[in-house]
Amino acid sequence: MLIILEKKFKESQKQTLLKLLVENGSKFRDTTFNGRQVIVVSDVSSGKISSGIAKVPCIERIVDVNEPYQLCSRNAKSSDTVIKVQDFKIGGGEFGVIGGPCTVESEKQTLDIAVQVRKAGATALRGGAFKPRTSPYAFQGLKEAGLKILAKARAETGLAIVTEAMSCDEVMLVAEYADVVQIGTRNAQNYRLLEKCGEVRVPILLKRGFSCTLEEFLMSAEYILAGGNDRVILCERGIRTFETYQRYTFPAGSIPALKMLTHLPLVVDPSHAAGRVEFVPSLSYAAAAVGADGLLVEVHNAPETALCDGRQSLLPKEFAAMVKKCKKIVKLLHDKD
Amino acid sequence: MLIILEKKFKESQKQTLLKLLVENGSKFRDTTFNGRQVIVVSDVSSGKISSGIAKVPCIERIVDVNEPYQLCSRNAKSSDTVIKVQDFKIGGGEFGVIGGPCTVESEKQTLDIAVQVRKAGATALRGGAFKPRTSPYAFQGLKEAGLKILAKARAETGLAIVTEAMSCDEVMLVAEYADVVQIGTRNAQNYRLLEKCGEVRVPILLKRGFSCTLEEFLMSAEYILAGGNDRVILCERGIRTFETYQRYTFPAGSIPALKMLTHLPLVVDPSHAAGRVEFVPSLSYAAAAVGADGLLVEVHNAPETALCDGRQSLLPKEFAAMVKKCKKIVKLLHDKD
Amino acid sequence: MLIILEKKFKESQKQTLLKLLVENGSKFRDTTFNGRQVIVVSDVSSGKISSGIAKVPCIERIVDVNEPYQLCSRNAKSSDTVIKVQDFKIGGGEFGVIGGPCTVESEKQTLDIAVQVRKAGATALRGGAFKPRTSPYAFQGLKEAGLKILAKARAETGLAIVTEAMSCDEVMLVAEYADVVQIGTRNAQNYRLLEKCGEVRVPILLKRGFSCTLEEFLMSAEYILAGGNDRVILCERGIRTFETYQRYTFPAGSIPALKMLTHLPLVVDPSHAAGRVEFVPSLSYAAAAVGADGLLVEVHNAPETALCDGRQSLLPKEFAAMVKKCKKIVKLLHDKD
Amino acid sequence: MLIILEKKFKESQKQTLLKLLVENGSKFRDTTFNGRQVIVVSDVSSGKISSGIAKVPCIERIVDVNEPYQLCSRNAKSSDTVIKVQDFKIGGGEFGVIGGPCTVESEKQTLDIAVQVRKAGATALRGGAFKPRTSPYAFQGLKEAGLKILAKARAETGLAIVTEAMSCDEVMLVAEYADVVQIGTRNAQNYRLLEKCGEVRVPILLKRGFSCTLEEFLMSAEYILAGGNDRVILCERGIRTFETYQRYTFPAGSIPALKMLTHLPLVVDPSHAAGRVEFVPSLSYAAAAVGADGLLVEVHNAPETALCDGRQSLLPKEFAAMVKKCKKIVKLLHDKD
Repeated sequence: MLIILEKKFKESQKQTLLKLLVENGSKFRDTTFNGRQVIVVSDVSSGKISSGIAKVPCIERIVDVNEPYQLCSRNAKSSDTVIKVQDFKIGGGEFGVIGGPCTVESEKQTLDIAVQVRKAGATALRGGAFKPRTSPYAFQGLKEAGLKILAKARAETGLAIVTEAMSCDEVMLVAEYADVVQIGTRNAQNYRLLEKCGEVRVPILLKRGFSCTLEEFLMSAEYILAGGNDRVILCERGIRTFETYQRYTFPAGSIPALKMLTHLPLVVDPSHAAGRVEFVPSLSYAAAAVGADGLLVEVHNAPETALCDGRQSLLPKEFAAMVKKCKKIVKLLHDKD
Repeated sequence: MLIILEKKFKESQKQTLLKLLVENGSKFRDTTFNGRQVIVVSDVSSGKISSGIAKVPCIERIVDVNEPYQLCSRNAKSSDTVIKVQDFKIGGGEFGVIGGPCTVESEKQTLDIAVQVRKAGATALRGGAFKPRTSPYAFQGLKEAGLKILAKARAETGLAIVTEAMSCDEVMLVAEYADVVQIGTRNAQNYRLLEKCGEVRVPILLKRGFSCTLEEFLMSAEYILAGGNDRVILCERGIRTFETYQRYTFPAGSIPALKMLTHLPLVVDPSHAAGRVEFVPSLSYAAAAVGADGLLVEVHNAPETALCDGRQSLLPKEFAAMVKKCKKIVKLLHDKD
Repeated sequence: MLIILEKKFKESQKQTLLKLLVENGSKFRDTTFNGRQVIVVSDVSSGKISSGIAKVPCIERIVDVNEPYQLCSRNAKSSDTVIKVQDFKIGGGEFGVIGGPCTVESEKQTLDIAVQVRKAGATALRGGAFKPRTSPYAFQGLKEAGLKILAKARAETGLAIVTEAMSCDEVMLVAEYADVVQIGTRNAQNYRLLEKCGEVRVPILLKRGFSCTLEEFLMSAEYILAGGNDRVILCERGIRTFETYQRYTFPAGSIPALKMLTHLPLVVDPSHAAGRVEFVPSLSYAAAAVGADGLLVEVHNAPETALCDGRQSLLPKEFAAMVKKCKKIVKLLHDKD
Repeated sequence: MLIILEKKFKESQKQTLLKLLVENGSKFRDTTFNGRQVIVVSDVSSGKISSGIAKVPCIERIVDVNEPYQLCSRNAKSSDTVIKVQDFKIGGGEFGVIGGPCTVESEKQTLDIAVQVRKAGATALRGGAFKPRTSPYAFQGLKEAGLKILAKARAETGLAIVTEAMSCDEVMLVAEYADVVQIGTRNAQNYRLLEKCGEVRVPILLKRGFSCTLEEFLMSAEYILAGGNDRVILCERGIRTFETYQRYTFPAGSIPALKMLTHLPLVVDPSHAAGRVEFVPSLSYAAAAVGADGLLVEVHNAPETALCDGRQSLLPKEFAAMVKKCKKIVKLLHDKD
């Protein structure tokens, strides 16, 4: 249950409300959502809210939501959430493109690619400084040095910076340098990390766990919203199935399903889904056509020498041609008639 | 190994060749493919072909193919296969749309829908007369009476007829009435049925087994081609995964993968993948954008009373709007620049 | 709905009943099940049965079953079904072991293995004469010549013969030579074939489709029972999942689930699940421990020269040691205390 | 590559070795494993080790391992790892049983169950103080108060305590109170958490990610071993597949596969795999029969009132009967003959 307070309310009234909730034995959390103060009451099933509570004057309305995810739900907020950082804008009809290398390898590599993805129509730069690697013996990223390079790339290009954090400490550090903190697929149900994402003031790009259901995906986003950060960008990056011809399976139907269930913006990562560069453009066209709000794409100026994931990285000129077509598809589908 | 004969050859030369193959202990099959007589030799690994064979005059060339599927492969034939029946044309840039009800329920229902899907841009009519049902107690279709209704719909509209057969006998019967014989997902590895499809002179629409890999899918098609029928239309209809929000998962990446591996035309069935009508248009846009050669869509003029699958059937006017947009996407992606 | 007739009834009464059902507009099928005449009425939802029907004297009781599978269900028959052919006995506490080669290769090979599996404790011999192969170019089996070899092996050893049929014609042919007709995983939803299995008088060993749910598996068995053959042995042979370390995944939990849902006996095929011989014994112990009624195991006296699946075949002495341990586990779990 | 040092070596020699590795441009990590000092060199492919290195006197042998997981591998250590804490012993033929409630609810509940699982044959107590919940609104556990209750249960019963930690901070805290730190399935690829587990001096029970391959599972364990903690107990708890009849699918074949690949002990959690109590005993028998080294089972004295997972919890007396049978199966399979 969500108790949405009026735009302007007296602090004393709110205190009365909280006191009544305590007396009622309810568990609740005081947060902001959609520009409003909201009390999230979480144990409605076990204890009824007394009728006295509903009469406290500062309450605008009470939303009784049955979904296990509440703040994410279209029921809680019917209009699309739009997120804007630097020149990057996504949601509500804005198609936001994020491009860049898998890994920040050097200042020169990063700046070169940044300039080229900007020219190609991207408004945000991706690039890993902290890299989650299946093997403990693999290259783990440049860490803070990588973040500094990304910040420099932003200064030179105006691109928003999207980069991953893997621990609570890294979330705080990344939030200092970057515009969007990315949470990877392997941490999609790392609840302590999601709670920490609720505390920072930068948007979060949350990747779907590669075997999470849509409901579990939204519940993970709910952790961030319930923690106080309502700027979450969802990212579909492919799921694991019996089919191994491509690295993961891009389940195109998840896009319209998520757009129906939630108001949050949603990007597609075709690079990890495909795992092979020759399939990235067509998956991107599919993503644009099926209703995604944007793309997160790996781009490298010398894929054959990339430290990581070169096989799935587009060249800048391929990326530019692809972005152009994606935007045409989006426009075509938005046009009346 | 494929031994492709010259366009014009002397029967006596061919007999010499076959005799040499027999002496050599090779297993082979005499078929036609791509307008040519082809000898498919299948046990190359166990017995070498004697050098004498390669010198028989009627041979144009010998193709040594390593894929387990040979005739389906782009290596065997690099150009797109185009299939044409009635006004229906698919492959090689032609976007073929097949629409119609899940099941043939009555003459009136079928003719009404046929007229409407034709007007909406379809050139073929789907509709089940023999219905594969998970339960033996469910409605099994109108059978031959249904085929007669479909033939009547063709006579009145010029639409090609696509309808399913579930046994060898039914293949023969359906081939008499319909233009394309459909093989369903549950029979995708029913090898005796596939062999029978190799013997008939009508094109086959072969649905992917809902848990078959791409290689297994192509091997099933190979049964039909090796049997002598090279007019096969592949159909991606969604795969079974852990995700149950939609009936099946539409794995968009399978489309560009199949287009790379095979020369056969490929349609997408968004209706069975989605299982719910609200997702059918966006999956169709995705299919068009990702490179499919056409669509197979359930359309019903009164979905709420449909005997089967009403929940996933579009209304004719929804179908018309969707087909229009799909064709625009296809055009956009084919346009230079 | 099942209308179970009394043990002895007058034909005229039955005719009255059927006439009333026709007048009532009901769809029904007249079959035998569990030694009784049963009328399976399949459209209860669409048309109520008139109260007059229930009063026809020949009716013992009417079972209103809600499961989509009715005759398979424990609700229709609570006691375990026991199947006996030759010396092979399975169900109701009897642990039935079926061993033999993947493929019938020659008379000598088959007889040698038959003698050895008999000595090792098997009472049935498996061996393919009609082989379903993913590739049309692979060895397809000795066909009727193979059936004759199997019949000879039975004559010499007393083993029951279990062998596969892939088409309606083959079902009839196999039923002439063999004691049990096997339906393979790729034909698990080949409904015409299942209907044919309902017509023959030999037991059917039905493999689970490698991606069928338990409900779908039981619905396939239901086709056979509804067709009039209530002697069906289910076979769990592993499902397809994201895990590729073994050929398929043996889902041990399906065994107690099926034993709860159905009265039919259930064997496990550890050979196809594992795909590698080193895992076959431990999967067999697991099968025995988790409640299977028997095993279907590939055994070969020279696995390295086997025409098919040698990598997953046990040697006869390994098979003997394994069977012994499996029977001890079964005994241990049945013992009181 | 692993450089294993002699039991006794001069520190100056080791320093010489490390200096040579630095000069060689190699990346390495200094750790202990199996009671020995080991230098793990991780970039063998990119830079050859100079021949001079192999001659440094303190080196006993150099193991060139190709598996991506090195320390976990049977190649690195052929004998079974045995782990002992309090009265709990697992591996090398010891069958270790861990029982207890899903969640620590109160002191009384926990102590009552502890006494009963001890009597039933368990030597370790499970019980969650920090609970990973899909919903942010669900009960999150008693936290440190729960750990204190568990410590009290150990004091009264001698049971080793196994309980979960979800963040680096919690690992340190849990390690103070408990005997084994559990890492849950959703954190199975939380690499920062795994690194922290490498630093503590208590054994780790690592659950398989519900969609991780066996290789990924071992790579996660490798993070802990490479971090310096070689006391890791693996736990198979079921994987996510298309089958939803049970909560997860227990892939019995993973047990012999893991026992072949790694020397680490391996327990099975039948409770989460089954999700329903009626299937827990048979899955436990399967686990014992297929070669698991132990069990992790949910037991509750009043399942109907449990705060969490009551539906999958055994009663103490059911647990006792089941443990007895499991131990008989293990004995039977270890017996000669």
